[in-house]
Amino acid sequence: MSARYDFASDNTAPAAPEAMDALVAANTGFTSGYGTDPVSARAAELVRELLDADAEVRFVASGTAANAVCVAALCRPFEAMLAHHHAHICTDETGAPGLFGHGVGLTGLPGGSGKIDPAALAAALEQPDVSYRQPAAALSLTNATEYGTVYTAEAIAALTEPVKARGYGVHLDGARLANAAAAGFDLKRIKDLGVDLLVIGGTKAGMPPTEAIVIFDRALARRFDARLKQSGQLPSKGRFYAAPFIGMLGSGAFLRHAAHANAMARRLAQGMPFPVRHPVEANAVFVEMDDERLTALQAAGWFAYRFLDGTVRFMCSWATTPEAVDQLGESLRQIA
Amino acid sequence: MSARYDFASDNTAPAAPEAMDALVAANTGFTSGYGTDPVSARAAELVRELLDADAEVRFVASGTAANAVCVAALCRPFEAMLAHHHAHICTDETGAPGLFGHGVGLTGLPGGSGKIDPAALAAALEQPDVSYRQPAAALSLTNATEYGTVYTAEAIAALTEPVKARGYGVHLDGARLANAAAAGFDLKRIKDLGVDLLVIGGTKAGMPPTEAIVIFDRALARRFDARLKQSGQLPSKGRFYAAPFIGMLGSGAFLRHAAHANAMARRLAQGMPFPVRHPVEANAVFVEMDDERLTALQAAGWFAYRFLDGTVRFMCSWATTPEAVDQLGESLRQIA
Amino acid sequence: MSARYDFASDNTAPAAPEAMDALVAANTGFTSGYGTDPVSARAAELVRELLDADAEVRFVASGTAANAVCVAALCRPFEAMLAHHHAHICTDETGAPGLFGHGVGLTGLPGGSGKIDPAALAAALEQPDVSYRQPAAALSLTNATEYGTVYTAEAIAALTEPVKARGYGVHLDGARLANAAAAGFDLKRIKDLGVDLLVIGGTKAGMPPTEAIVIFDRALARRFDARLKQSGQLPSKGRFYAAPFIGMLGSGAFLRHAAHANAMARRLAQGMPFPVRHPVEANAVFVEMDDERLTALQAAGWFAYRFLDGTVRFMCSWATTPEAVDQLGESLRQIA
Amino acid sequence: MSARYDFASDNTAPAAPEAMDALVAANTGFTSGYGTDPVSARAAELVRELLDADAEVRFVASGTAANAVCVAALCRPFEAMLAHHHAHICTDETGAPGLFGHGVGLTGLPGGSGKIDPAALAAALEQPDVSYRQPAAALSLTNATEYGTVYTAEAIAALTEPVKARGYGVHLDGARLANAAAAGFDLKRIKDLGVDLLVIGGTKAGMPPTEAIVIFDRALARRFDARLKQSGQLPSKGRFYAAPFIGMLGSGAFLRHAAHANAMARRLAQGMPFPVRHPVEANAVFVEMDDERLTALQAAGWFAYRFLDGTVRFMCSWATTPEAVDQLGESLRQIA
Repeated sequence: MSARYDFASDNTAPAAPEAMDALVAANTGFTSGYGTDPVSARAAELVRELLDADAEVRFVASGTAANAVCVAALCRPFEAMLAHHHAHICTDETGAPGLFGHGVGLTGLPGGSGKIDPAALAAALEQPDVSYRQPAAALSLTNATEYGTVYTAEAIAALTEPVKARGYGVHLDGARLANAAAAGFDLKRIKDLGVDLLVIGGTKAGMPPTEAIVIFDRALARRFDARLKQSGQLPSKGRFYAAPFIGMLGSGAFLRHAAHANAMARRLAQGMPFPVRHPVEANAVFVEMDDERLTALQAAGWFAYRFLDGTVRFMCSWATTPEAVDQLGESLRQIA
Repeated sequence: MSARYDFASDNTAPAAPEAMDALVAANTGFTSGYGTDPVSARAAELVRELLDADAEVRFVASGTAANAVCVAALCRPFEAMLAHHHAHICTDETGAPGLFGHGVGLTGLPGGSGKIDPAALAAALEQPDVSYRQPAAALSLTNATEYGTVYTAEAIAALTEPVKARGYGVHLDGARLANAAAAGFDLKRIKDLGVDLLVIGGTKAGMPPTEAIVIFDRALARRFDARLKQSGQLPSKGRFYAAPFIGMLGSGAFLRHAAHANAMARRLAQGMPFPVRHPVEANAVFVEMDDERLTALQAAGWFAYRFLDGTVRFMCSWATTPEAVDQLGESLRQIA
Repeated sequence: MSARYDFASDNTAPAAPEAMDALVAANTGFTSGYGTDPVSARAAELVRELLDADAEVRFVASGTAANAVCVAALCRPFEAMLAHHHAHICTDETGAPGLFGHGVGLTGLPGGSGKIDPAALAAALEQPDVSYRQPAAALSLTNATEYGTVYTAEAIAALTEPVKARGYGVHLDGARLANAAAAGFDLKRIKDLGVDLLVIGGTKAGMPPTEAIVIFDRALARRFDARLKQSGQLPSKGRFYAAPFIGMLGSGAFLRHAAHANAMARRLAQGMPFPVRHPVEANAVFVEMDDERLTALQAAGWFAYRFLDGTVRFMCSWATTPEAVDQLGESLRQIA
Repeated sequence: MSARYDFASDNTAPAAPEAMDALVAANTGFTSGYGTDPVSARAAELVRELLDADAEVRFVASGTAANAVCVAALCRPFEAMLAHHHAHICTDETGAPGLFGHGVGLTGLPGGSGKIDPAALAAALEQPDVSYRQPAAALSLTNATEYGTVYTAEAIAALTEPVKARGYGVHLDGARLANAAAAGFDLKRIKDLGVDLLVIGGTKAGMPPTEAIVIFDRALARRFDARLKQSGQLPSKGRFYAAPFIGMLGSGAFLRHAAHANAMARRLAQGMPFPVRHPVEANAVFVEMDDERLTALQAAGWFAYRFLDGTVRFMCSWATTPEAVDQLGESLRQIA
């Protein structure tokens, strides 16, 4: 029996038909390169509509690179990005922020269920500027968080307010922004939350590889294409990264699929025979499970592994079926 | 009248049906990520067959990044890559080798029609190792060259032999390797030419964005995935970059389309009313044209621009039609 | 009353007469540059004698840069250096390893009083090589440690053995190597402990700014001068960084002054009215003191501050006098 | 007979007595570190007086690093510094600007005798901003130039005016600023020439290793100490780099010694039996000499070598004696 990757991550799923259809539709005729084509322009327009914001938009291949480019745009090498200590940029990107940001620091902040503790942020901001440590220059937030919880707009504003008051920058990693939106996070409020650079995840939302970088602070947009090109993130055939967004945003599938993924996570949590560790607000379920049972689960064919906090993570996606959830639930009950 | 991008570059074309069909076919079911999936394994196998070589293969999103990653793998920051002074890595990648290679040097070598002058290479290799200049650590070749000419295996061997004799590395930028192969360059000989790292262009060969990195020197393969991940070039949904190679290599379209592109360039050159500057061996035609006539050509709707040597470049691709060639030829004759 | 910096650090002291005399003596006549002069050659010879080792030696301006250059020589950007989580490279060098090492990771390991816990090291070495985290490539040790404790040769061997068994590198930060030696650490055993790169602190040992980089693994020496030049650490007037080592090593002052500094620390600890936190083996004393009393101490004119573990640090140097120790002791008793 | 390095460079000389005396004088008592000491403050004051400018001043160890730090401060990695193609940062610093500036580009400009051709600068500034090349962000000038010529204030203003008009930055490499001043360049006018960052060479002016970075644009000064610390250029014992400037500036020796060096160059040029290639305005003489005669000169014991333009360079310094000039002249006449 081959392993089942249904719940291993939300990037193990195929691309949704709306995205693929748009990709195929965009594949016609000759067009200009490097994001100057009409497909990219149309997709950018849809992103602006999604956010109700007048911002510049770029489509790139990699979420890791998109985040790292944003860190480099907001922090100089002798400065640091503040982020949750379990944020993806801190734990899962092989030091990409340091490579793209030339040694830039990452200062990890604690906080329950993936959300930054406001007191810890305040303490970090109050650290004196000494020459021998990398002082904070920006804050990176993630919504939905790594632990499947969702910040409200108010919660984000409370975190960004003291950051912006110091003239520092804000990056929002929206690898799972669709899931946050489906959980009630109002995307049209982002423009008022002090976010300078936003990455909207296409890949985890059900698209072929693509991510959108949204530049709210237009001063940062100067020579951004040169920045992307040097970073290997200015695709010559840009329409292939833009088209999936047209398919998903134009049809509403972006939010609809995320809502489905979130619902599948709730369904999984409801029948879960193991203790659920974090609030199930988006598309992830984290449970406490000992090694013996995890091994048994893997032996039953389910790919699953321990996350940073020691729990076992199950991710749902647009492609997760109720039947798969129920099959996993049945396996879990058998080993519990 | 909107501009026609047919001849602006070989990345203005759409993707070929063989590549797209494979992409769509691969988009089914859940699978593991980061290049560990069966689609990536199958595509790597086909690349090894194409080259008749036992090498490691990775599929990445960007040719610029692929080249830059190779430079960083072969040269330390205080060393330099030797390359033709008009090579893509020297002139068209916004200093990406320097970013990924942390200040690594690029030492430009002269040579007619994009081919490195062996005497210039020899002189560069004989430069003494002084502490205040970046000494050579590797050679980067491009085939087909930036000027649409094609190295024979013998010509490459003559260039790499003195490089390897010093223990230096060799990178081959094969953004247009298909065109070189269609022009007679035997891909199965690459493994004997001292090449350590090869980039096979998918994008310019008619695929959606994808490039293959072939690691002939397996010592370089250690932790290569970590290298790629940090570089933003280890796609989570790896099958999307592998599948097009399956479609193109499995069907023979890779070489067939390139042969067509080369034939279109020859057709264009044959009726060309302007002096053709470089041998038309692959899919490019470079002509001498004054500013007045270039402006007239652009006014006639054809996107074209001056290249590094002052000539005007026309690129053909898998999608170039004889009709388009003839239409361009007609426009050229009208303004000549 | 101006602040007294006697105990603020061991770099607040002036340079010792033996070092200054040698500097003045070396300042005669024209000589070749960039470390090729006879003064540099003689100083290197004395370093080899000190270590009883056949190694290459370079003299540079900065300990921070020396350490960072070593990290970059031992780890690639997508790899990580293991180090005590309170090691100077982790906490006090503004991310210099990341700048010189291009985003290289630093993986902090715990351990009491500045010494790495062997179990924590073992656990770090057993971490699986996954593409999304920076795997360990080397270990950095510090002797004397940041907390004024001293590793024995056996203790270092126990830490480096499993590291070398994996083919990884070892860096020894000897900013206070003289103090470790004066405390009984046998410098002639370093060559057998698996150390690839050693930095011998001149500055904290009582010299004007200078540090020696000792290259035990000669494979690393290739093009090291180019590495240093690019790093801004190949001084044209190299004799100014070499001469102090001649003065200090040739006269025995290197160890004699360090022994004095260590003795001063013991003297301070003996009469200390506050709880001493770490074993006083080298030239530092760390005490527990509340904020009120620290403020009172500062008001009394003594520059002192909290260290990373929350204690207050007092450093002694070659220039610390018994009278100053007693004056500080008196102040401490008054506020206790 | 050992080689004579008198004319090999201006960094083969010892340090001048004024500088050494100040160094020795500063070596007393405990003081605060990292440039916060009174010696550094006093030296900075003298630099401001020299320039009649209200600027921030830092003292660092390395001219190569100082220049590279300035490049990194003025250009982002995907941008380029414009500089004379034979400027020290382009040809003699092992790519340090690329390391400190993370892949930043260097765009070489032509011009006779080390001075940038204004038309070439204008053409470079008019290059369109395209994403695939590193656009100019700043201009680097050198005075005195690499070829011993000296820009007037008017000539510098003519070059910086179009640069500043675009909002770009200006770096002035003053490794031999003293020689330029002694040749008539008015240092008090620098503040009006659009220079943002100036490096004043101490080493070549006759000091032990030290260079001053002058920050005219105070916006660049924010967190500059953290920038220096990360770059390995914030010396803990800062007074050792500041004191020589006190000795040289306070006594007038800075200009007096430079005037002597310039006079020695003129004396050498006057009796020169080989064609002098560039105007002898500062402390260098460049002559045309064939290989046979250069070999004979070296055999006669004089260290000399070919420079970038194929001429043979002779440098004079504060320590060059008329007798040495005449001895070299005699040797030259014998081989001519």
